[in-house]
Amino acid sequence: METEIVTIGDEILIGQIVDTNSAWMAQKLNEEGIHVRQIISISDDPDHIEETLNETGKRVPLVLITGGLGPTRDDRTKTVICKFFNTKLVEDPVVLQNVTRLLGKRGITINQLNREQALVPESAMVLPNEMGTAPCLWLKKGETVYIFMPGVPFEMKNLMEKEVLPAIRNEFKTLPILHRTIQVFGIAESILAEKIKQWEVSLPDFISLAYLPAPEGIRLRLSASGKGRDYLENIVNSEIKELSKIIPDYIIGFEDDSISIVTGKLLREKGLTVATAESCTGGLIAHSITSISGSSDYYKGSVVAYSNEIKTNILGIDKRTIDENGAVSKEVVEAMAINSRKLFGTNYALATSGIAGPTGGTATKPVGMVWIAVAGPDKIVSKVYNFGNNRERNIIRASQTALNMLRLILLE
Amino acid sequence: METEIVTIGDEILIGQIVDTNSAWMAQKLNEEGIHVRQIISISDDPDHIEETLNETGKRVPLVLITGGLGPTRDDRTKTVICKFFNTKLVEDPVVLQNVTRLLGKRGITINQLNREQALVPESAMVLPNEMGTAPCLWLKKGETVYIFMPGVPFEMKNLMEKEVLPAIRNEFKTLPILHRTIQVFGIAESILAEKIKQWEVSLPDFISLAYLPAPEGIRLRLSASGKGRDYLENIVNSEIKELSKIIPDYIIGFEDDSISIVTGKLLREKGLTVATAESCTGGLIAHSITSISGSSDYYKGSVVAYSNEIKTNILGIDKRTIDENGAVSKEVVEAMAINSRKLFGTNYALATSGIAGPTGGTATKPVGMVWIAVAGPDKIVSKVYNFGNNRERNIIRASQTALNMLRLILLE
Repeated sequence: METEIVTIGDEILIGQIVDTNSAWMAQKLNEEGIHVRQIISISDDPDHIEETLNETGKRVPLVLITGGLGPTRDDRTKTVICKFFNTKLVEDPVVLQNVTRLLGKRGITINQLNREQALVPESAMVLPNEMGTAPCLWLKKGETVYIFMPGVPFEMKNLMEKEVLPAIRNEFKTLPILHRTIQVFGIAESILAEKIKQWEVSLPDFISLAYLPAPEGIRLRLSASGKGRDYLENIVNSEIKELSKIIPDYIIGFEDDSISIVTGKLLREKGLTVATAESCTGGLIAHSITSISGSSDYYKGSVVAYSNEIKTNILGIDKRTIDENGAVSKEVVEAMAINSRKLFGTNYALATSGIAGPTGGTATKPVGMVWIAVAGPDKIVSKVYNFGNNRERNIIRASQTALNMLRLILLE
Repeated sequence: METEIVTIGDEILIGQIVDTNSAWMAQKLNEEGIHVRQIISISDDPDHIEETLNETGKRVPLVLITGGLGPTRDDRTKTVICKFFNTKLVEDPVVLQNVTRLLGKRGITINQLNREQALVPESAMVLPNEMGTAPCLWLKKGETVYIFMPGVPFEMKNLMEKEVLPAIRNEFKTLPILHRTIQVFGIAESILAEKIKQWEVSLPDFISLAYLPAPEGIRLRLSASGKGRDYLENIVNSEIKELSKIIPDYIIGFEDDSISIVTGKLLREKGLTVATAESCTGGLIAHSITSISGSSDYYKGSVVAYSNEIKTNILGIDKRTIDENGAVSKEVVEAMAINSRKLFGTNYALATSGIAGPTGGTATKPVGMVWIAVAGPDKIVSKVYNFGNNRERNIIRASQTALNMLRLILLE
């Protein structure tokens, strides 16, 4: 079973945005056992769109198209659809209701442009888009199904998961590919590869392994195919068990787990609370924790102390401690953790102090150097790291590492 | 002058990596006045590669191909090249020298696999790759030039800038295209479209407009082509001036500006400081501000008060104010702003309090409802918003809106 992905939008062709939709869609389709033959990015030009619909339809039984659906006049896709599928636009009352509802929530009365969003090709099956005003359209010509989705990533993702993939499963017969993701943190890719080499080599030939590195850690993905689902599940699970014995401390979770999710779960299970005192991470630890719904059960808050006077005035750190050791030091970061734990009245507190860069580094305290401390009921743990000289990346890595230190302490 | 970009690699089609090369190349080509007709991602399969070379050559006089050149055995591109261009592989002494030099630097003696990297199609012009072992190949068939580059981003970028673009300029006659981006915030796409309709319709026909919406705002992009560069600059600048008169409050900046960048610049210029007190935004305002290098000049820090007791204990908000009005209220958010301004000793303070969701909403205080306040030396401004029911998005929108409220006050 093959498919092609088409993304419509001049902004991709002039390089203004990177097409991240296609990779996400390709991953999801792959998990359904659908092979992506090619990905094509084309302009908003109606002739070009029509030509592409025509050609892809000759090659594959399923074409997924994103972009070109929206309220403004640079979106001409619907006109092309009518021509290509030999149909006409009609107002869809359900779509109109959805547009009115979405705009109403934002206190907006619909105008002519919005009203036009409710026009859909008569022969299309309409899949509702609860997140946005442009609906998803499912049309068939000859033996090929075409699915048109808006290009806004969160709308497309929600539509794919709730509407499109179930409808595809229903329409086509596909063989599942089983994927399992293991989230690994705190180890370099090359060292990890060495450690798990023997295990990797002895994997059965119908299971493949992929390394997917990111600033948030390394994802290991096992993909198995060709046998019954239960059989695959058993084998893959026992391979994961083997892997867990080799690198127990580095596996933080599975599938969509992140360090904030896993650490949050541990805190909730144990009925414990945490607070943070952030210098170089500037609020990113707080943001990572509070991105998770329900985090107010275990998270009390943060003091982002972006200047020394705040470390003194709000966190109560002795000015001499800062003067003698510098803000980026074991002494200061430990005091930040201890004092914020008291201030917020929590079981644990995390603190960071470092040089985010690109300026501010010295020979002894270079850009990327970060002190992290975790204060708990019985003890305080602190450690110094060097996360490199890219500001964005080292803020992310410091935040994730701080949360991971807490995770490891909670597991003790 | 048109081109097509082809990226070769199964890893793109299974969604393992996002193709960022194409966007970068598209931007560079665009600046040369070369229009990218489409971008195609294909598999490593030789037949598929050959078919694509054949089809792109029928459509455009220039095809840029990345990927499929490298030392490992899944790279079959060179065999396809020989077949397609009817030539054979010969050892290139300059390439061999480069491979030997690069591996030597890493203490590696070349093996058979590396030696094969020095084999190039006899009829190819070889452009040297100083960063890597795979050379860049320039071949012609009929009226079309094909340029093959390695897929490793830093090698490709270096090759494009030092070798490929100069050679293209030399071979083809090209006209420049001018792009200007206007960053718009705080207005819905459909309302913006209505407001600027007249202006848009009266744009000269060699200037086109595109809407690029994101949670962080809407980018409007003007593209002009076909005349001399100075002439285009003048016309585009005067069109932007006209637009600024129509929507003065909504234009936050140009090109890569963001609200944190623009607001940071204003604070620095005026020598003013700011602090934040965040409830529902959970540290994201602090993170947005501190993502900008040098923000410690104007940013003192934040109290993330994720529970009511912290609002009372650290921010000093009267418990009765919270009990009587609820945490998500004008009274509480204003007290948060006023008190944090005092606590941090800054000129301004921003505060947020809202229901991030998905749980916690009520009929009178639904998910997405957020109170935002800005306290300054002379006055306090507060406003209530509804940012919808997606947790991630409404945290982003609340953070950006708070910074925008400060921006507007600083501009008064």
